[in-house]
Amino acid sequence: MLFVTCTTPLRCWFSPTPWDAVTARLFVNAGARAIATTSAGIAATLRYADGQNVPRELMMDAIARIARVVDVPVTADTEAGYADSPEGLQESIRAVIDAGAVGVNLEDATGDSAQPLFAMEQQIERIRAARKAADNADVPVVINARTDVYLAQVGAVASRFADTVRRLNAYREAGADCLFVPGVTDMPTLTQLVQSVPAPINVLAGPGMPAVADLQRIGIARLSVGSGIMRATLALARDAANELLHEGTYQTFLDRNIPYNEVNELMK
Amino acid sequence: MLFVTCTTPLRCWFSPTPWDAVTARLFVNAGARAIATTSAGIAATLRYADGQNVPRELMMDAIARIARVVDVPVTADTEAGYADSPEGLQESIRAVIDAGAVGVNLEDATGDSAQPLFAMEQQIERIRAARKAADNADVPVVINARTDVYLAQVGAVASRFADTVRRLNAYREAGADCLFVPGVTDMPTLTQLVQSVPAPINVLAGPGMPAVADLQRIGIARLSVGSGIMRATLALARDAANELLHEGTYQTFLDRNIPYNEVNELMK
Repeated sequence: MLFVTCTTPLRCWFSPTPWDAVTARLFVNAGARAIATTSAGIAATLRYADGQNVPRELMMDAIARIARVVDVPVTADTEAGYADSPEGLQESIRAVIDAGAVGVNLEDATGDSAQPLFAMEQQIERIRAARKAADNADVPVVINARTDVYLAQVGAVASRFADTVRRLNAYREAGADCLFVPGVTDMPTLTQLVQSVPAPINVLAGPGMPAVADLQRIGIARLSVGSGIMRATLALARDAANELLHEGTYQTFLDRNIPYNEVNELMK
Repeated sequence: MLFVTCTTPLRCWFSPTPWDAVTARLFVNAGARAIATTSAGIAATLRYADGQNVPRELMMDAIARIARVVDVPVTADTEAGYADSPEGLQESIRAVIDAGAVGVNLEDATGDSAQPLFAMEQQIERIRAARKAADNADVPVVINARTDVYLAQVGAVASRFADTVRRLNAYREAGADCLFVPGVTDMPTLTQLVQSVPAPINVLAGPGMPAVADLQRIGIARLSVGSGIMRATLALARDAANELLHEGTYQTFLDRNIPYNEVNELMK
């Protein structure tokens, strides 16, 4: 297993996110030099909604299935770490490493709409604990700390930028290597974030997100696509099923697919 | 769990084939009144090539994840039953039923290129054993016996039709409810098959297959799509990864996808 460091843009700049073994191998074959898993994508395949509903053990099994079939560093989306307490979080970090990943996403979202984010002090304790568990591993582990201030629309609009910067810098000081801010797509705010946080910034692709070249120009270090590609494949699957069930024809899935033998070759 | 019978065309006429929990639920929401799993699709998600490489237990777990999230009958593609012996096959049938399926595909392909099909007498014994195990279950179970004479191109071209009919009729007498002939798409042969085998005939959609309405007109009872839809989603995933990695843009997956909240709703 190689070492993935977010400070090496070549290694983890922009990463398609697989949700199972075959998409992992497909993305590496396409040229990905590191891959990040998607919690939402994996949860759905396993019959769960996103948001820490999937049992930790099942998520780790899914991460292991992905890590086992690729020869590039894997960073795992582990939501809020499947535990509130620092000790529980450390168990999760060890499980992620045992599953073969060398990076981990840790968010400050609680999944509780009444209190959508962990208090900053609590999240700092959690990241410190995660850092300690990561440093005790036999491999270097990258911690990507995420704040959902923007994504969960926490607090007044006017205060979100300052809240985000405050949290990101605190998470960095607590030991995070990368800082992940989903929910921001406008260039002025992205530029200001890079200037206000002296660490690699990770953003989430979505409608309105500038192209990678533009993001690189302003110093964004890393881009994830979350469940985006997975949800596009679901739309295609739904369209193909609708055509089959309601028209009785097969064009949607015959038009363009990877041949049966090629998929088998890919998995050998 | 409902009873799926192949003699009721409304129930199992044409079925999109899911490979995980989310596609299963998607296809039922699209109107599927029964679903058939795809061994190739499931195997690839679990890091195996098709052809009885996936451990039986993992395949049964995958079938269970699918059966658990839908309220229509599920029939499982279990390749050649993950066992050669009649006793091993009976264990597999019991495992399929425990996983929540009420139908099973059983092929006569061995996966061995030197002897691609089980000898007819051996396959008859296997189907008899499967029938016995199915009849001992608490639910009615539909056995869909498949011959790969055409798909594996066994024997001289001129003898394949007669070999197929001989095998299908023998499998029917051994207790199969449906008879599955992948690899045939031309109307004259399909018509002759229906006329030569007094039981529901199941075909596999692929390039050149006539539309469902045409198949119904000649009396074909059931159509599967195998890993077709799954392999179409893989082509889309690969295209999206290529665009991201080589163009640095996101159009392929942003153009058309199921929104994040909708996927979560689907899995609640």
